[in-house]
Amino acid sequence: MNKPDASVHRSTISASIFPELGQRFRNVRKLTTSLIRNLEPEDTVIQTMPDVSPTKWHLAHTSWFFETFILAPLMPEYEPFDPAFNYLFNSYYNQMGQMHSRTQRGMLSRPSLSRVLAYREHMDHWMIRLLGEQSDTRVERLTGLGLQHEQQHQELLLTDIKHVLSVNPLKPACFTDVQMPLASTEISPIAFVGFEGGLQQHGHAGDGFCFDNELPRHQILLQAYELANRPVCNADYQAFIDEGGYRRSEWWLSEGWAWVQQHQVERPFYWSDQSDQEFTLLGLQRLNPASPVCHLNYYEADAFARWFGARLPTEQEWEYAASSLAIGGHFIEAGRYHPGPCESTEPQVLSQLFGDVWEWTASAYCAYPGYQSDAGAIGEYNGKFMCSQFVLKGGSCVSSQDHLRHSYRNFFYPSSNWQFTGVRLARTI
Amino acid sequence: MNKPDASVHRSTISASIFPELGQRFRNVRKLTTSLIRNLEPEDTVIQTMPDVSPTKWHLAHTSWFFETFILAPLMPEYEPFDPAFNYLFNSYYNQMGQMHSRTQRGMLSRPSLSRVLAYREHMDHWMIRLLGEQSDTRVERLTGLGLQHEQQHQELLLTDIKHVLSVNPLKPACFTDVQMPLASTEISPIAFVGFEGGLQQHGHAGDGFCFDNELPRHQILLQAYELANRPVCNADYQAFIDEGGYRRSEWWLSEGWAWVQQHQVERPFYWSDQSDQEFTLLGLQRLNPASPVCHLNYYEADAFARWFGARLPTEQEWEYAASSLAIGGHFIEAGRYHPGPCESTEPQVLSQLFGDVWEWTASAYCAYPGYQSDAGAIGEYNGKFMCSQFVLKGGSCVSSQDHLRHSYRNFFYPSSNWQFTGVRLARTI
Amino acid sequence: MNKPDASVHRSTISASIFPELGQRFRNVRKLTTSLIRNLEPEDTVIQTMPDVSPTKWHLAHTSWFFETFILAPLMPEYEPFDPAFNYLFNSYYNQMGQMHSRTQRGMLSRPSLSRVLAYREHMDHWMIRLLGEQSDTRVERLTGLGLQHEQQHQELLLTDIKHVLSVNPLKPACFTDVQMPLASTEISPIAFVGFEGGLQQHGHAGDGFCFDNELPRHQILLQAYELANRPVCNADYQAFIDEGGYRRSEWWLSEGWAWVQQHQVERPFYWSDQSDQEFTLLGLQRLNPASPVCHLNYYEADAFARWFGARLPTEQEWEYAASSLAIGGHFIEAGRYHPGPCESTEPQVLSQLFGDVWEWTASAYCAYPGYQSDAGAIGEYNGKFMCSQFVLKGGSCVSSQDHLRHSYRNFFYPSSNWQFTGVRLARTI
Amino acid sequence: MNKPDASVHRSTISASIFPELGQRFRNVRKLTTSLIRNLEPEDTVIQTMPDVSPTKWHLAHTSWFFETFILAPLMPEYEPFDPAFNYLFNSYYNQMGQMHSRTQRGMLSRPSLSRVLAYREHMDHWMIRLLGEQSDTRVERLTGLGLQHEQQHQELLLTDIKHVLSVNPLKPACFTDVQMPLASTEISPIAFVGFEGGLQQHGHAGDGFCFDNELPRHQILLQAYELANRPVCNADYQAFIDEGGYRRSEWWLSEGWAWVQQHQVERPFYWSDQSDQEFTLLGLQRLNPASPVCHLNYYEADAFARWFGARLPTEQEWEYAASSLAIGGHFIEAGRYHPGPCESTEPQVLSQLFGDVWEWTASAYCAYPGYQSDAGAIGEYNGKFMCSQFVLKGGSCVSSQDHLRHSYRNFFYPSSNWQFTGVRLARTI
Repeated sequence: MNKPDASVHRSTISASIFPELGQRFRNVRKLTTSLIRNLEPEDTVIQTMPDVSPTKWHLAHTSWFFETFILAPLMPEYEPFDPAFNYLFNSYYNQMGQMHSRTQRGMLSRPSLSRVLAYREHMDHWMIRLLGEQSDTRVERLTGLGLQHEQQHQELLLTDIKHVLSVNPLKPACFTDVQMPLASTEISPIAFVGFEGGLQQHGHAGDGFCFDNELPRHQILLQAYELANRPVCNADYQAFIDEGGYRRSEWWLSEGWAWVQQHQVERPFYWSDQSDQEFTLLGLQRLNPASPVCHLNYYEADAFARWFGARLPTEQEWEYAASSLAIGGHFIEAGRYHPGPCESTEPQVLSQLFGDVWEWTASAYCAYPGYQSDAGAIGEYNGKFMCSQFVLKGGSCVSSQDHLRHSYRNFFYPSSNWQFTGVRLARTI
Repeated sequence: MNKPDASVHRSTISASIFPELGQRFRNVRKLTTSLIRNLEPEDTVIQTMPDVSPTKWHLAHTSWFFETFILAPLMPEYEPFDPAFNYLFNSYYNQMGQMHSRTQRGMLSRPSLSRVLAYREHMDHWMIRLLGEQSDTRVERLTGLGLQHEQQHQELLLTDIKHVLSVNPLKPACFTDVQMPLASTEISPIAFVGFEGGLQQHGHAGDGFCFDNELPRHQILLQAYELANRPVCNADYQAFIDEGGYRRSEWWLSEGWAWVQQHQVERPFYWSDQSDQEFTLLGLQRLNPASPVCHLNYYEADAFARWFGARLPTEQEWEYAASSLAIGGHFIEAGRYHPGPCESTEPQVLSQLFGDVWEWTASAYCAYPGYQSDAGAIGEYNGKFMCSQFVLKGGSCVSSQDHLRHSYRNFFYPSSNWQFTGVRLARTI
Repeated sequence: MNKPDASVHRSTISASIFPELGQRFRNVRKLTTSLIRNLEPEDTVIQTMPDVSPTKWHLAHTSWFFETFILAPLMPEYEPFDPAFNYLFNSYYNQMGQMHSRTQRGMLSRPSLSRVLAYREHMDHWMIRLLGEQSDTRVERLTGLGLQHEQQHQELLLTDIKHVLSVNPLKPACFTDVQMPLASTEISPIAFVGFEGGLQQHGHAGDGFCFDNELPRHQILLQAYELANRPVCNADYQAFIDEGGYRRSEWWLSEGWAWVQQHQVERPFYWSDQSDQEFTLLGLQRLNPASPVCHLNYYEADAFARWFGARLPTEQEWEYAASSLAIGGHFIEAGRYHPGPCESTEPQVLSQLFGDVWEWTASAYCAYPGYQSDAGAIGEYNGKFMCSQFVLKGGSCVSSQDHLRHSYRNFFYPSSNWQFTGVRLARTI
Repeated sequence: MNKPDASVHRSTISASIFPELGQRFRNVRKLTTSLIRNLEPEDTVIQTMPDVSPTKWHLAHTSWFFETFILAPLMPEYEPFDPAFNYLFNSYYNQMGQMHSRTQRGMLSRPSLSRVLAYREHMDHWMIRLLGEQSDTRVERLTGLGLQHEQQHQELLLTDIKHVLSVNPLKPACFTDVQMPLASTEISPIAFVGFEGGLQQHGHAGDGFCFDNELPRHQILLQAYELANRPVCNADYQAFIDEGGYRRSEWWLSEGWAWVQQHQVERPFYWSDQSDQEFTLLGLQRLNPASPVCHLNYYEADAFARWFGARLPTEQEWEYAASSLAIGGHFIEAGRYHPGPCESTEPQVLSQLFGDVWEWTASAYCAYPGYQSDAGAIGEYNGKFMCSQFVLKGGSCVSSQDHLRHSYRNFFYPSSNWQFTGVRLARTI
């Protein structure tokens, strides 16, 4: 929800890689527009709840980022596309001036989609020109940051349009040119993998890109623990429901139980009333028992864990367990846009840590010891959200693989369930 | 607000006028689509407040009316366009089944505008065919009613899209191919015309079409009164503001004063902060002091009258005074889409009674003695709204001239100000 | 709801009646305090919905009225009890300065009940002294008005405390020293009494006290009509419920149906879930089928009438039918505090027109032709509420008999159901 | 906010201390009722915001705790005072059955204060009898827990009644028999005391009473840090305001800035508009520049720290720094009911860690590694609130000294500011 707009650290990209950056710029920007290939202009306008931003807004705001933080300050000859856009497409950078209210984003039919796409092309044109002309490392650093920002919005664009389409009784699909793959519906029981803990290093290492909230790398003390070999799947979660998961208060946080009662919740968001289908970016689809349960909020993840006799892992436990594994799995590049079942699950192998679904941790999103946010408006990217949210790890089926890191910290409010969020269990030994 | 969907009375259209009805059907339907000629598809989706319906919805709902009340029940070979539309585009006919929530109309990006236009064409095709084939008087009566219904929605479509565009900081115009005409900015003071009253007849006379709420014609007793020779103009209203109109409670109804304070109202809706411009269907335009003040709600109309030392007329007073005048003025057919100044105002001539702005009356919208609503779902058109609303008379710059009658009763809640609503003063002698 | 504080007209009370006024003052004021004889101090603090005022507030505000409009302006030697009370106990007289918010009245634990009672005694002391000293007719007129005002608040005090006690699961009684009388539970069917109508006089006649809204007396034209011989009783209303009264939309105003659905209404306010008991000022009591149905709002009254095949009477019809009858029935003086069944009902006699329950009319509360509100703050008593409310006639079991008149116009919003409000049917012949 | 109702651990109270427990029971219970010595019955009814409970409710709920968890299950001959009270005075123990809604606590005028005090006496009588008769260690353990629970409610009773009285324009005092002591208004600048950190033990040690959330004691790793020698005082906070503290977004969390803007906050809660007085339990009093700033919420505490160039301490840092200091300071036993200035502040001595004001930490309230909540309804005391709240340390001027521990964890939502909450700064070295 409070995502976007990051800061870059320790990036020592040499001038020689400029052509690569230009190519990466083109690829990331092109991926964004490919996501709306099956949408109607009308789809791109609507805001179905305060957390959701219209597709059109995502397309414009990501361009606004390049204009505001790179082209306007660093390229004297740059000609703004439309001065009104600075007000309309600022998300939350108070230091960049007044902005249009977040909750009113769906009240704007103009600029039209075609004009927003023209705005994007304008920005692409000038950015490509800038990247070909200047060898300023600020340009490189900020362009890299702008692309990370754009990747975050690719994911948000999809989770938001999923919500928009879901409230429509016609249940239209976002992607009409993608088929849900045939997949196994069998799973083996959850097994736990043990870790000894001890004194460990935590946070981003190396000099590649990371957000400021992944720093500084610091020493932590871990007690021994176990982590589940796979995410909780739909079949597991159905068992919880069958035992009265949403009718018995004893497994729930106080806030969670209030949420269940207020909204009369009986099943995960996007599940059909009969619990046999779920709404996906490919339209209504049969619910696969072997796929990771998805669109749980923190309350549900926590209640399931307590019912199971386990708990959620801390972000330190998750990250340490993942540290020796390469980042791989089903990401946005796979073009599936929905989590799928594990292809093989062995008891002592951590599977599907990356991709498919973000995994809730028990860790409140807070500053690492010695944390410093960046200076200026860019510093509003992460630090000011360190309150009342929880950390998620691992990325989802609509995250970019090259956007993820072991130390990556996603964060959402405990009531949020419109992201691709699931759960992996942990236990204290 | 609770307009649409009427019932026909005493219509004795003979079979010989069928060709005329077919032509009228084509004309009315074509006028509707001409109104959106300068809009983008994105404009047609948005609902900026609960009273507003999206343009797309108006286009579809008017077609749904023909489908539901004529084609489906009366033409066996009719093939529905899309069964889901019955749920989506029912406005408020409880007897026709479940319907999509009014407040959620802006949450639907599909069906797209182009599909809604196809739905319209489908209906036009079948209706034209029906009108050419059947000589059933029910078909004629209901088709006449459906066209009255469509004309009401033409007006609502325009007042609703005006609101939609107004909340956009870009202030786009609905009509980019229309110019605000040059017009006089001079006015003469309001004069009053006297009427003796006495026992009179009130309500619809003759056997032409009318809505059920205009019947039965009945005798009334009128006391002597005076009616202003022209509507209140912007310059008159500015004088009220200048004397503290929105800062002093003594002229206001209790509800009205609460409304002023809650919303911190300082001027009419759509006036710019400097009170020199107003938002119109042609975009932001200079405010003409000689034009009728517009977009007042009942509270403002009533407070202005009390400040002036006058009052609002009753609907009986208004209708009796108008009874000898022909219906003429600036209606939607003039293609101006905004009220303009009087061309000449003589002290003893009632000018601009029709067209330009609806005129609030002091009469609560209620049943005439002996009122009977129609049977069945069509009976939900008018009678069930006879509570908490006030009657308005005369039509506006976006009403159809051939839709109006002397006995026509429009009605809105006292807080409503997004219609073209103005005020004409009255006095007890 | 927006009651209190009236203006006096044409009152030509001569100086010789001063002693009577003093006695009347004592009697009315004493009746007020007798109403709280069984309450705890804690009962007098609470505001259970915005329409309700705490008992303590009623006791203080009625005293504030005498202080503000009589003692402070007309008696130089008067010593205010507490200057802060002017702010705390002004109800809605904008012209008397700032006031404490109506919705926050229940947030005030101080002044305590005992201090409010001391405030009352202070006022009684000074008023008695004033009435013994001055022969100013303004004093007489305003004292008379203040007592009418106090009588209105006696009724509101009881309807408000009824609501306060009703929300308590302990269901305490307001009066523990009163027994519900044994009464017949048999009723005969409703019969209708015919009236010819014609040109009639309407409004207050004579030079006794009346509120400004009952004037001027004016000529009206009545069409022939019938009025039911008795109010609708609980048994009649149960039949409506049994036929799906709250489940079928066809009998309801649009606003009324929305109210039913929003609040999931299934029976009258204060009826128990099993519809065998009702909450009263004497605690939970058995529902008497023969007693007038009570605590209906306008929507329910109107829906019942439509289901029955009748309608609500206009205020003119009601008042004309009542004009030849003396005011009599069960009022507050009877000390029953709850409507009881008719003692005898003959088909051609209008029974229980007065007392027991207020009867909703179909007339929106509006100004009579030529209406003038009083000057100054006193003018805020009635006129500013002439919007969105309906007129009720006849008084209730908690109205004072000597407060009522044939021309008396009570008024409430159509959604209001916490007053003793019932229904008598009418029909057009 | 979600306080009350704890669980006892490792308590090995021997039977020989029974007389002491009886005496402690009497003392704690007596202190509770002494707090309302200057209140009116009317004061004890009101709920001025959802977080606030009426005084009467606190008095009853603390008694309900003894009845529900001790007398009813463990003493067969116990006679309940009133069966309805179980529903009315259950706070949030879902496993103990249905309960009256928290937000409706202020809607109950009955049972009256005198009846609630009788309920307390009933409970005292039976508890004293039980403590004299039974030597069951469960009785001892649960009685100890009930007294801890009562002490928590003593604090809440006072913070809640402070809110109740504060909204009254009359600004009444809770204590009219207490004087604000004369005290120094001079302070020396904040100094910082350094700590080396390293591997340390954290959580409750020993076998005395503690709540389950203070366990298990576990090893932690602390980095080097500094802690301020004294709390932030009013003069320090005024400097923050003077530099635009509430007008500049850059120091605020995103949630905090939204809170400032939504409520137009300009100063701490309870400060007068001129910032020269503050509302206290002794009524309006002059603001002492040298006293700890109080009634800050987490957003304000965090923004102040960022403006200062420091940060909030973690709960581990606070507890470790405090571990060698005895618990002492101004608690409820001092009978001052308001934080006062430091009597002497030396740069290298941590002063006022305990008493006066609770100190916000940067630590989200969460489970310690290996945390287990108690079984049954008592287990709802702490664990289910481990979400979205922050830990506070040290106790306040209205906490009981013998209720506090070094390991004590208080917790509130970041927006809460009606408790006696202040701030002590920390820095990373």
